[in-house]
Amino acid sequence: MQSIKSYIQDNKDRFLNELIDLLKIPSISADSAYKGDVLKTADAIKISLEKAGCDHVEICETEGYPIVYGEKIIDKNLPTVLVYGHYDVQPPDPLDLWNSPPFEPVIQKTDLHPEGAIFARGACDDKGQMYMHVKALEYMTSNNELPCNVKFMIEGEEEVGSVNLAKFVAANREKLTNDVILISDTGMIAKDVPSITTGLRGLSYVEVEVTGPNRDLHSGLYGGAVANPINVLTKMIASLHDENNHITIPGFYDKVENLSDAERAEMAKAPFSLDAYKKSLDINAVYGEEGYSTNERNSIRPTLDVNGIWGGYTGEGAKTVIASKAYAKISMRLVPNQDWEEITDLFKNHFESIAPNGVTVKVIPHHGGQGYVTPIDSVGYRAASKAYEATFGKTPIPQRSGGSIPIVALFEKELKSKTILMGFGLDSDAIHSPNEHFGVWNYLKGIETIPWFYKYFTDSFK
Amino acid sequence: MQSIKSYIQDNKDRFLNELIDLLKIPSISADSAYKGDVLKTADAIKISLEKAGCDHVEICETEGYPIVYGEKIIDKNLPTVLVYGHYDVQPPDPLDLWNSPPFEPVIQKTDLHPEGAIFARGACDDKGQMYMHVKALEYMTSNNELPCNVKFMIEGEEEVGSVNLAKFVAANREKLTNDVILISDTGMIAKDVPSITTGLRGLSYVEVEVTGPNRDLHSGLYGGAVANPINVLTKMIASLHDENNHITIPGFYDKVENLSDAERAEMAKAPFSLDAYKKSLDINAVYGEEGYSTNERNSIRPTLDVNGIWGGYTGEGAKTVIASKAYAKISMRLVPNQDWEEITDLFKNHFESIAPNGVTVKVIPHHGGQGYVTPIDSVGYRAASKAYEATFGKTPIPQRSGGSIPIVALFEKELKSKTILMGFGLDSDAIHSPNEHFGVWNYLKGIETIPWFYKYFTDSFK
Repeated sequence: MQSIKSYIQDNKDRFLNELIDLLKIPSISADSAYKGDVLKTADAIKISLEKAGCDHVEICETEGYPIVYGEKIIDKNLPTVLVYGHYDVQPPDPLDLWNSPPFEPVIQKTDLHPEGAIFARGACDDKGQMYMHVKALEYMTSNNELPCNVKFMIEGEEEVGSVNLAKFVAANREKLTNDVILISDTGMIAKDVPSITTGLRGLSYVEVEVTGPNRDLHSGLYGGAVANPINVLTKMIASLHDENNHITIPGFYDKVENLSDAERAEMAKAPFSLDAYKKSLDINAVYGEEGYSTNERNSIRPTLDVNGIWGGYTGEGAKTVIASKAYAKISMRLVPNQDWEEITDLFKNHFESIAPNGVTVKVIPHHGGQGYVTPIDSVGYRAASKAYEATFGKTPIPQRSGGSIPIVALFEKELKSKTILMGFGLDSDAIHSPNEHFGVWNYLKGIETIPWFYKYFTDSFK
Repeated sequence: MQSIKSYIQDNKDRFLNELIDLLKIPSISADSAYKGDVLKTADAIKISLEKAGCDHVEICETEGYPIVYGEKIIDKNLPTVLVYGHYDVQPPDPLDLWNSPPFEPVIQKTDLHPEGAIFARGACDDKGQMYMHVKALEYMTSNNELPCNVKFMIEGEEEVGSVNLAKFVAANREKLTNDVILISDTGMIAKDVPSITTGLRGLSYVEVEVTGPNRDLHSGLYGGAVANPINVLTKMIASLHDENNHITIPGFYDKVENLSDAERAEMAKAPFSLDAYKKSLDINAVYGEEGYSTNERNSIRPTLDVNGIWGGYTGEGAKTVIASKAYAKISMRLVPNQDWEEITDLFKNHFESIAPNGVTVKVIPHHGGQGYVTPIDSVGYRAASKAYEATFGKTPIPQRSGGSIPIVALFEKELKSKTILMGFGLDSDAIHSPNEHFGVWNYLKGIETIPWFYKYFTDSFK
C-alpha cells in the first residue's frame, strides 16, 4: 500500500484536471433550468466509475434525477464497502460575491492552502470529496490493492432532500447489501487535526407564505389600517425564539437528548478558539441558545434559522407599497431522537396557529431527514481511525457535526449497516457559500487515506 | 363655460389617445435603467404644454430628472394658478400580477367603470391626473375662456422623494410666484361623492441593512451558533410595534396632534362600509393601532410599514444557508407636526440601538416630507368646492388622506401659497399596484371641472 503516495505524485495533475472538468458542469438540482447539466453530470460520473475499474455501472432512473450505481465484486465471501456521494451542488448565488465564476474552477493559493485550493461550486461539497473515492478505487484496481468488494451509489438530489434516493434504497436492498457505508461529505477539525464525524443533525426545511390583502396596496392609503404581510411575517418569525433563544414551538424539545455533564466536558476538550472563530467570521460576538457553548449550539442542540426571506419592493430606490404576500424559507436542524416529520408537523401547526386575523398563512414542507449518531466502537470506525493514523500520523478525534446528511439514518434503517463519515473538508471551505473551495492537499490526502480504510476494514474480517 | 361639455365630447378620443401615448413611456424614476424613458417623457410633456397654449415652456435641468416648466401670462394684474404634477411613475412589479402589460395601455370596462378605464402604470398616478390640467388649459386657451395666468411645474422625481424639486422651488421663488397651487394627485370618496383632500400625511422612508458573518454560511455548520441576520432583522422589525400596534420608537408620538372627540365624531360621518372595505381586499379582519377606527388609522395616525424585505436564498427549492446580510425598506407615514427629518433620526438612533451583539446595522434614509393640513375657508378651497358643485351637482366633502405629497408643505413654506388638492382618482384605482387604472369618466370629469375652478378662483379676486 506504500505505493499510493507515489501513485498520487505521478497522477496528481490528472486527478486535479478530471475534478476540474466535473466542476465545470453546473449541476444545480434546486433549479430546474439546469436539468440538462445535472443529467450530463450523471453521465460523467458513470464514465469515471467505469474508467476507475468498476465492472458494472448503470444510470438508475428515478422520478427525479438518476442515481449512478457502480460495483466491483471481487469475491462474494469478502466484505463489501458501499460508497455514497452526490453529484449535485447548491445554487451558487449571490454570484456577485464570488471572486471567480462558480463553474469556472481555478486553483489559487490561500494562507491555509499554500499548495492551492480549487475554487468552484461543488469543489468540496460534494464533487471533490466524492471523486476522492473514485480515484482511490482507480489506485486500488490498477495496483491490485483492492482487498474487498465495493459498490458506489452517487445521487443527484442530495441538496434538495434525497427524496428519490430513499425510494431507490428501499427498493434495492439486495443490490445494495454491504458491510459498511463510507461517505466523505463532512469536514475535519483542521489540516493537522484529523477527525471523524460521529453525529449529524436532522433537518426539517419548510417554506412559509403570508397573504394579506388580495393585491399590493399603496402604503399611504392603506398603511396602518390593514395587516401588512411583511410586518406580520417578521412578528411571527421573531416569536419563534424567546429571549434566551430557545425555540418556542410547543413540543419542539420534547425528545431532545440532554447530554450528561461528563459528555459535555468531553466535548469541550476539542481544540477550539472562540477568538479565531469570531475573527474568521468578522463578528464581535457569537449568538445562540443561553446555557450552551458555541460547539454545543452547532452540534448537540436543535436550531431554527431563516434561510431566505422576501416580499414587497426589493429593487433600487423606494416604493411605498404594502405587499400582498411575504415569504420565508425556514430550516430546523434537529438532534438524534427528534423525528423530522413530527417536527415539521409541530412547526406547521404552531406557525399556522399564531397567524393574526387579517392574513392567511401557508406552510409548505420542503424536505427533511433524521439525525444520526454513530458508535465509535464499531469495526468501521476503528478501521477509519487506523487509516487516518497511517496517513496523518495521529489518531482522529470523534466529533459531532451540526450539518445534516438526511439519508444516513435511512441507510441504517433500510440496509442495517453503519455509516462511517470520513470527511476531508475544512470549516473554512465555504460550502453553500460564495468562493467554495477544497484544498489540493486535502483532496490528495483523502485519496491517500481511503485505500487504508479498505485494508484495515477487510483485515478486521480475517 | 358651458361649451366645455361639448368640447370634451368632440375631442374625447383624442384626449384618450394622447394620454395613452404618454402612458406608453416607462418613466420609472426609481430605476436608473429607465433613464432614457424618463427624459423622453419630459420632452413629451413640454410639447403637450406648448400645444395646449403655453407661451413659454422650458425643460429645467436639475441634478436628477428635469422639471418641465410652462406658463401663459395673460395679464400681470390677474391672479396666477400654479399647477403641479409629476410625469414619473412607480415601478410596475410584480409584473406577473398585471392582466395586461403595464406600459401597453388598454381601455377595459369594469363594474365601477362601465364607460371603461385606462389600465397602465401611471394612468391615475399621476400622468392621467396631470394631463387633465393640460387638456383643461387647451380648452380654455382655444375657447378664450382662460380667466387668469397659469404656470405649470411638472417634475420627474415625485416617486423618489422630489429632492431636486425642493432645490428648484427654493431657487426660483420669483418665477413660481402664484396665488394658489393646484394639484390632482389624490382621490375622491366615490364617483358620486366628490371630495377635496384637506390633509396629507408626511413620510420618512429608510432602508436598513443587517450584517452578520462576513460571508454566507452553511446553516448546518453554523446554525444556532452565530447571529442570523434575517432572524435578527425580523426580531428588530417586530419590536417596532407593541402588542397594541403602537410604534415603540421613543419620542415617535411626541408631536402627534390628538384630535378632539368632536373632530373624530365629524370624521366618522364620512360614508364608509367596513364590510365593503374588507371584501374589496379579501381580508377577514382589519388590523392596526388599538383604539382607532380604520379611517383614523389611515389618516390622522402615523404608521410604520415594511415596504420590502429580502435576504438569503429566495429562488426555487431549498438552500441551507445563513445569509451574511438581510435588508428591508421601511416607511413611516407621519401626521402634521411630526417633522420627517426628526422622525428619521429617531428611527435611525432607535434601530441602531436595538441591534444585538453579533451583527452590525446600517440605516440609510431614502427620502421624506412633511405632512400638511389645508384650511377649508381659503379662497382656493371655496373655488374648488364651487367647481365640483358645477359639474357634480354636489358639495364636495373635505377629507384627510393617508397618502403623502411631501412637496406640499414645502410649497407653502417657500412660495407662501395654499395648495388645493382636487383629486379625481378612486381608492380602487390600484395606484402603486398591479393593474393601476383611471376611469375614462373620471378623466373627462376632471377636465370638465378644472376650468370652473379657474373661473371661480378668478371671480373671487374681482
